[in-house]
Amino acid sequence: MLAQRISLLSGSGTAAARDATTVAAATGRQVIDLAAGEVIIQPPPSVREGAIAAIKAGTNRYTDSIGLSPLRKTVAEKLSAETGIAWKAEDIAITAGAKQGLLDAALAVLDPGDEVIIIRPYWPTFPSQVVLAGARPVFVDARPPTYIPDIDAIRAVVTPHTKAIIINSPNNPTGAVYDRAILRAIGDLAINYHLWIVSDECYSNFVFTGARHESILTAHPGVRSRTILVNAFSKELAITGWRLGYFAAPREIVSAAKKLQSHTTSNANVIAQHAILHHLKVGDGSFEQEMFQRLSMVRNAGLLILSGLHDVVTPIAKGSFFFYLDLSKFISALPAGSPVRSTDDIARLLLEKADVGSVPGATFGDVSGLRLSFGAPPDLVESGLKRVVETLNSLKTRQAAA
Amino acid sequence: MLAQRISLLSGSGTAAARDATTVAAATGRQVIDLAAGEVIIQPPPSVREGAIAAIKAGTNRYTDSIGLSPLRKTVAEKLSAETGIAWKAEDIAITAGAKQGLLDAALAVLDPGDEVIIIRPYWPTFPSQVVLAGARPVFVDARPPTYIPDIDAIRAVVTPHTKAIIINSPNNPTGAVYDRAILRAIGDLAINYHLWIVSDECYSNFVFTGARHESILTAHPGVRSRTILVNAFSKELAITGWRLGYFAAPREIVSAAKKLQSHTTSNANVIAQHAILHHLKVGDGSFEQEMFQRLSMVRNAGLLILSGLHDVVTPIAKGSFFFYLDLSKFISALPAGSPVRSTDDIARLLLEKADVGSVPGATFGDVSGLRLSFGAPPDLVESGLKRVVETLNSLKTRQAAA
Repeated sequence: MLAQRISLLSGSGTAAARDATTVAAATGRQVIDLAAGEVIIQPPPSVREGAIAAIKAGTNRYTDSIGLSPLRKTVAEKLSAETGIAWKAEDIAITAGAKQGLLDAALAVLDPGDEVIIIRPYWPTFPSQVVLAGARPVFVDARPPTYIPDIDAIRAVVTPHTKAIIINSPNNPTGAVYDRAILRAIGDLAINYHLWIVSDECYSNFVFTGARHESILTAHPGVRSRTILVNAFSKELAITGWRLGYFAAPREIVSAAKKLQSHTTSNANVIAQHAILHHLKVGDGSFEQEMFQRLSMVRNAGLLILSGLHDVVTPIAKGSFFFYLDLSKFISALPAGSPVRSTDDIARLLLEKADVGSVPGATFGDVSGLRLSFGAPPDLVESGLKRVVETLNSLKTRQAAA
Repeated sequence: MLAQRISLLSGSGTAAARDATTVAAATGRQVIDLAAGEVIIQPPPSVREGAIAAIKAGTNRYTDSIGLSPLRKTVAEKLSAETGIAWKAEDIAITAGAKQGLLDAALAVLDPGDEVIIIRPYWPTFPSQVVLAGARPVFVDARPPTYIPDIDAIRAVVTPHTKAIIINSPNNPTGAVYDRAILRAIGDLAINYHLWIVSDECYSNFVFTGARHESILTAHPGVRSRTILVNAFSKELAITGWRLGYFAAPREIVSAAKKLQSHTTSNANVIAQHAILHHLKVGDGSFEQEMFQRLSMVRNAGLLILSGLHDVVTPIAKGSFFFYLDLSKFISALPAGSPVRSTDDIARLLLEKADVGSVPGATFGDVSGLRLSFGAPPDLVESGLKRVVETLNSLKTRQAAA
């Protein structure tokens, strides 16, 4: 009796991995959660003060469905400063997390029968939202170790039905950061084939290799009229559960989102809106900087630990806060009779034997991968990664001994 | 270049009316806003304390996409107490306002080509969400003065494509409260034709005529396996902008919503969830009771004022917090040359000449209606309604004088 689309949606694999971790922890075991896509840190005082002030003032009414005007204006200023491109309040919509911005984009541009190019490994919400819009995801594999897609591979899947391409740099789950060359090539392709570009830049604050994050809009300003740039405060201010994001886009998309959000959820939580507005006004950037430094240090420590893995190339992990392991060689080198045959098996083994939560690659459309977050507290990340290395290497040792 | 669905969605007419009111007020005029669908009152201290405690505790992480387990359990207990039907946490999903619950329902049960029966005048989000699911709204008129639909009129539009019926009692905008007889008849019809019932009961706390609110599930317990009961805390706790609602439904719908919400917005704002959980634990019902008494008194006063209208039957206004005027006779009695020919004209006139915001019926698919909220502060409601009566009657007087 349910609609067909429900069977086409993935369950949230990351949520399932989180659930498994929580269930294991509930049995009293000291589980280290490297599954969650969150930085585990208290949100900045300015955000909390802004929220409390709004609550004390009795703030409770609806806002415009795409957010408070002063917040849209302030976000436009922030984005202008970050990108060097001029944005106005009218170009911005405030959303309930980046997810809602991406959903707005899908519903605003996709008709049933349209095709959308998605780079694989992918964040599972991308194809599910395309399905919600009645359209069809078409996948292009980005291969290890760089996980940067090949422009010819993208071009090869374009058809007359192709309507959009979704990109995500810095990438969840692979940690890839797209350079100017690939961004320009994607921009040219989008122009040539009249495609919309949906650019999820939620991890823009998390690039660890000296270079700064580059948006497709700075790499290729010519795509502005066809680009929906989606971002959020969830990751950079550690308020994932508060649900506050935004997008910047041509005004016809902002107008469409105003309609869409008025019928899907109304405005993002008004207290969260005021909290972020306050933070953007009074924050001095120290929280963001400290978080970056912590992640940068734990990334270095983590890479050193992971370099001890046998038959696994140490990930590049340029951006986001994930180590993404390519375990294809590792698994194929296990003995034929090994009970471990997949990254699903490995994630289960890590949880059951090593008390470490991780997300297997099948969640991202890639059976060879395993995602380990370094957003957990640094000491836990290090302990957890040591357990991962020990557990995986012991599988090899047992094989060698057999 | 936009998707076709965007042109099929209504803009939010109520939001547009609110915007017009805000714009007028920004010019320095003392506009009385009877357009907003909100009770203008500070939220209860328990809600605010719960939110502040959660913020001070650093609460920030994702919850399950359909909400915190303790909140789902507590809502199940509240709903069990209110309906006399046993609900468990597993039957409940927490949503970003009732809107998201209704959207979940539409996306969970409707395939493209399906038809959905909607009673007109309707809340505009109902048909727009049906369109978002690729299905087709089919309207049945509920006529003044009762605005209770006729069961034969409903039966007459059922086709093999009919998949669901959406009902809303107490009703926005008409104030109608469905009695047991019509609820049972709708329930029987749904069973006979294998329809889902989506029952929006957001105004369940606002029934003013001695009788208590009756859910279709208490009127006809046999429909439980096909009913999605949607409700929210927005209205009864005056936290419309906080976006917190819930639905109770068969578990397959709850499971579908868990997937859907994981791809549309993730969880409702986590601070709002904790705030309501706290309120449900410590609240003594006094806030809800005081709000009810205020609305009940202002309703009585308002009805007395509205009884002074010429050529307009005083509304029944059994429930919700809206006076819904049927102006068909009034308009047809105006002289042929009158510049006022529609309820759109009247709403414009009321805003421009009487500084009163209202929502014309076209928003609800009914050109004859005009919605006036009595959720505004009581003195403003009374002043506003007096201005409405004076302005409308003066149109008649001028006619008589002409």
